[in-house]
Amino acid sequence: MISSSVLFYGIYVLCLCLGLLCVVFVSYWNIEWRGGFAWDASFLQFNWHPVLMVTGLVVLYGNAAILYRIPFTWSQRKQCWKLVHAALLLSSLFLSILGLCAVFDFHTGYHIPNLYSLHSWVGICTVVLFTVQWVLGLVGFLSPCSPLGFRKLLKPVHAWMGMAIFILSLASCLSGINEKLLLALDGNSNSTAAYSSHPAEALFANFLGVLIVAFGLVVLGILSNQRWNRLEPGQESSRVSMVLSAVKS
Amino acid sequence: MISSSVLFYGIYVLCLCLGLLCVVFVSYWNIEWRGGFAWDASFLQFNWHPVLMVTGLVVLYGNAAILYRIPFTWSQRKQCWKLVHAALLLSSLFLSILGLCAVFDFHTGYHIPNLYSLHSWVGICTVVLFTVQWVLGLVGFLSPCSPLGFRKLLKPVHAWMGMAIFILSLASCLSGINEKLLLALDGNSNSTAAYSSHPAEALFANFLGVLIVAFGLVVLGILSNQRWNRLEPGQESSRVSMVLSAVKS
Repeated sequence: MISSSVLFYGIYVLCLCLGLLCVVFVSYWNIEWRGGFAWDASFLQFNWHPVLMVTGLVVLYGNAAILYRIPFTWSQRKQCWKLVHAALLLSSLFLSILGLCAVFDFHTGYHIPNLYSLHSWVGICTVVLFTVQWVLGLVGFLSPCSPLGFRKLLKPVHAWMGMAIFILSLASCLSGINEKLLLALDGNSNSTAAYSSHPAEALFANFLGVLIVAFGLVVLGILSNQRWNRLEPGQESSRVSMVLSAVKS
Repeated sequence: MISSSVLFYGIYVLCLCLGLLCVVFVSYWNIEWRGGFAWDASFLQFNWHPVLMVTGLVVLYGNAAILYRIPFTWSQRKQCWKLVHAALLLSSLFLSILGLCAVFDFHTGYHIPNLYSLHSWVGICTVVLFTVQWVLGLVGFLSPCSPLGFRKLLKPVHAWMGMAIFILSLASCLSGINEKLLLALDGNSNSTAAYSSHPAEALFANFLGVLIVAFGLVVLGILSNQRWNRLEPGQESSRVSMVLSAVKS
């Protein structure tokens, strides 16, 4: 039988490769078929939006979420890894907000209303929830004056909110890629091929969506596996007493 | 403190209400703004697609997934609840396949290619995975000749696949509602209002998307809470020995 740690590291390498592929694919899509990047309120500024959201809200966020599951970190002081977790998530939040600025600036430049599609509703809720989660995490888990009772109460909510934000970010990215292809290929008179005629761009961007799904499911698979959960001080004994009382009853 | 069971039933009632609201909202959207239903390869046949997918793949599936978490079922024979779980999922699978037939028939009638959008790729993968999962579940957990070793191996894969299918179905429904509104409001010359002008239909259907997200997050919240996990025979002792060995090491 493969040991639990070896299995983890195998899946972790797969996760890193899928994340890297997502970033490469979303960048290549926008360079090859959408004209590349600029920051001038034009279509080229919009192109930053998918790149920053996929990189920040999916890949960086997903990697930050599974940080505590790496067996290598279990024997080390949690405080250091809390700082790495918070820093990765802050970078993820920064890229996501920059990604929102890219699309809002573009909309303003072309007099397109903001926040009308379901994609935009889900996306903005995701970033708002993420901001609330980061601030609550900072206050609850990194502030030295945070009471222990508050931390204990916050922890399951933090874990559930973290998973919810990640699922929402996956749904936002998938609906966003779909929306972009519909608008760029079917809703644009300059387009040379309809989405339904399976042009190379559509196949490539759809495959990016498949990569995002694969990355997301690997991250959620790691998070849902209890064997890779870092045991907290005191958690072992309380888990034993909880299980023992369940056995006795 | 509220007891764990009372908290569960509170959340369970919320889950049932949200699921019911999803079905009411998706039906009302298609009756009020899309002309109602028929089975004649017309636009009216397409309208069955969102109704059947939301009802089958999200609401029925979600309710089947959390069945074992209901404390009332814990003291009863698991075999009965396995049959209820399998029957609910079979109904969910039947409605989902019927929902796919609705869209394929409509596409054939109007000479629209199938499976070109990312929404359709994610959707078809979801239903294929769901079919594999149901058949594997039947063979592994309901067949009397299934070996115990196979069941033990299959169980965590079944739970993870079950969660993955549910997340994919949420993403499919959200991207599908977004796609339908873009095509019906922006891509149709008979449309009286663009999606970006916030017409009543768009707000209503976007709100349906929000309800689906809320239902999905409540289901995933229930699934991720270990306190509501039914303890299996032998699981208690193995969990105790696992935790004790972790404490000793």
